Amino acid sequence: ANIVLLPGDGIGVEVVAETRATLDAVAAQFGHSFSYSEHLIGGCAIDATGTALTQETLDACRAADAVLLGAVGGPKWDNPSASVRPEQGLLALRQGLGLYANLRPIRLFPELIQASPLKAERLADVDILVVRELTGGLYFGKPRIREEVNGRRRAVDTLEYTDEEIQRVVELAFRLASSRRRLVTSVDKANVLESSRLWRTVATEVAARHPEIRIEHQLVDSCAMRLITSAAAFDVIVTENMFGDILTDEAAVLAGSLGLCPSASLGDGTRGVYEPIHGSAPDIAGKGIANPIGTILSAAMLLRHSLRLDKEAAVLERAVAQAIAGGARTADLGGKLSTQGMGAAVRAKLA
Amino acid sequence: ANIVLLPGDGIGVEVVAETRATLDAVAAQFGHSFSYSEHLIGGCAIDATGTALTQETLDACRAADAVLLGAVGGPKWDNPSASVRPEQGLLALRQGLGLYANLRPIRLFPELIQASPLKAERLADVDILVVRELTGGLYFGKPRIREEVNGRRRAVDTLEYTDEEIQRVVELAFRLASSRRRLVTSVDKANVLESSRLWRTVATEVAARHPEIRIEHQLVDSCAMRLITSAAAFDVIVTENMFGDILTDEAAVLAGSLGLCPSASLGDGTRGVYEPIHGSAPDIAGKGIANPIGTILSAAMLLRHSLRLDKEAAVLERAVAQAIAGGARTADLGGKLSTQGMGAAVRAKLA
Ligand SMILES: CC(C)[C@H](C(=O)O)[C@@H](O)C(=O)O
Ligand SMILES: CC(C)[C@H](C(=O)O)[C@@H](O)C(=O)O
Repeated sequence: ANIVLLPGDGIGVEVVAETRATLDAVAAQFGHSFSYSEHLIGGCAIDATGTALTQETLDACRAADAVLLGAVGGPKWDNPSASVRPEQGLLALRQGLGLYANLRPIRLFPELIQASPLKAERLADVDILVVRELTGGLYFGKPRIREEVNGRRRAVDTLEYTDEEIQRVVELAFRLASSRRRLVTSVDKANVLESSRLWRTVATEVAARHPEIRIEHQLVDSCAMRLITSAAAFDVIVTENMFGDILTDEAAVLAGSLGLCPSASLGDGTRGVYEPIHGSAPDIAGKGIANPIGTILSAAMLLRHSLRLDKEAAVLERAVAQAIAGGARTADLGGKLSTQGMGAAVRAKLA
Repeated sequence: ANIVLLPGDGIGVEVVAETRATLDAVAAQFGHSFSYSEHLIGGCAIDATGTALTQETLDACRAADAVLLGAVGGPKWDNPSASVRPEQGLLALRQGLGLYANLRPIRLFPELIQASPLKAERLADVDILVVRELTGGLYFGKPRIREEVNGRRRAVDTLEYTDEEIQRVVELAFRLASSRRRLVTSVDKANVLESSRLWRTVATEVAARHPEIRIEHQLVDSCAMRLITSAAAFDVIVTENMFGDILTDEAAVLAGSLGLCPSASLGDGTRGVYEPIHGSAPDIAGKGIANPIGTILSAAMLLRHSLRLDKEAAVLERAVAQAIAGGARTADLGGKLSTQGMGAAVRAKLA
């Protein structure tokens, strides 16, 4: 299999290197051989080429079976009036590959429940899969304007959805729910937004085609609350791009650390982009202390979804669970292991 | 003083009635007399008049010193293709009165810390004031479209801000921070949205005029996370309309119940609209068990901001704190008191 690595910026570089070593260990164990090619994206791509995603990187990703990504961005490129930004690389990649669904599972390691800011009794049975729409909404709608006219400045972003865009991602959420607990929570702001009213209408139509699965509609503000008060009540959550961005960072708190949470961005085929949900973490970049688990678990999703290596994925996930059960902890979990130390602890549980 | 009451729908009716009785007790104690007039808004206004906010209600609010509001909405009016909605009444009221800033304090009663889903040690010293922009952004931007063309449906909402809209609400946040802990966290999504870049630029300009107050900029996704992991680190949060809607419902979890949280919607003068941040709660409406504390504390904000009765406001807030310290609990707090029982418990601590 042909895997493109896009380490990106900050700790992205460190966690992707560690995950590659771990993928190699899985390959060795099962007699596979993965070939990797590494490309630039984000801030490092801007520095080298002037653009956050080159045609060469995009072409390489299109030709690959799967893409493993670290993170993009950092203070170096954080200037409100900059004309190119690291994040554009990520958005262009998602759009260029047609990856309209971002799967973000929130699962808890029993040994880490005590590390959570939430009381243990609130965390029993939490197992949530957020399906975030990824190529529509405010992130991509036109027009996007920032202008100054007669000394007065204004800016515009556009939240636009078509029925097709909503339908395909909600349909995927229902398919995923059918092998889980059969509940889809569709999150919108239908009491205020036109786009949310269309969202709710289309979600209701999709639900009618899946009578064996329950749907509930929830307003985004109350969802933000219920994620903390009643997390165990959720199974699959499906929502638009911006709401999904906010709710998944919030939900990651349940897991005890953002550093543990993986994601898969999928489209119609099997190719996908796999990345941890954390960012480039400039405050700890280069120190070798970032938690690689979010990326390693993203690699497990890669094995499962893009390479159809279900058994290998399960073995890797079990190794992660055993390493954590065995006490392996990076700094974000209150421990002392380095990025490499955590990767090694996982690899020690393979085999 | 001339106070307009807008009970609205669902539990709005119950909590406003209880709060009026409590305001009367404050008035009696201090020798004031408040005159009330009650008007329709939301679903009940639609039923009676076909529109969610009549000109008569708006005129009455314009002529009043302050407005106390319950909640609007309910399943009866929840039809994605309805042409009038209860929420439009609330939005039109905010806009019609020029109430561009919604203040939502998040404060904890020590006796309720055990009721929170968060661990007690995460809640020490939490005292947050969220200032939510209230008359701009996605809620009001044009165009708003929902259409079907050749069998394909699409919908559009528009997120628009001018520099003036941002400037006035951020300026208010800085003024409020100067008598608090002198930290303003400005929340945006400047790595993706043009409107957020303008927001960040203007917030930075306002900050330069207040060198004695620290500003920090935070992305909305990480703010959603930090509100749970590090709530005590925040002082004043200022953000745009939709982000503020989501983050304040989330932050209300810290207080232990949405039913406890008040809000004040203010413009340039002293007139304001005061309402709890909870909604109409159709599931418990009419049962007489809703928690009136969010509305009673909103009335305390009314006394302070609109009537300039600082002492009376403080006495009312202290009575609430003492009632809770004395064990008064409605169902949302795991207790048995009715709405009236909770109101009576507060009034018993006045004097
Ligand atoms: C970096 C940014 C553009 C991105 C997003 O908002 O999608 C990130 O926050 C994420 O959640 O993957
Ligand atoms: C009812 C709705 C329009 C309203 C809002 O989103 O502003 C409510 O959620 C609130 O927070 O006051």
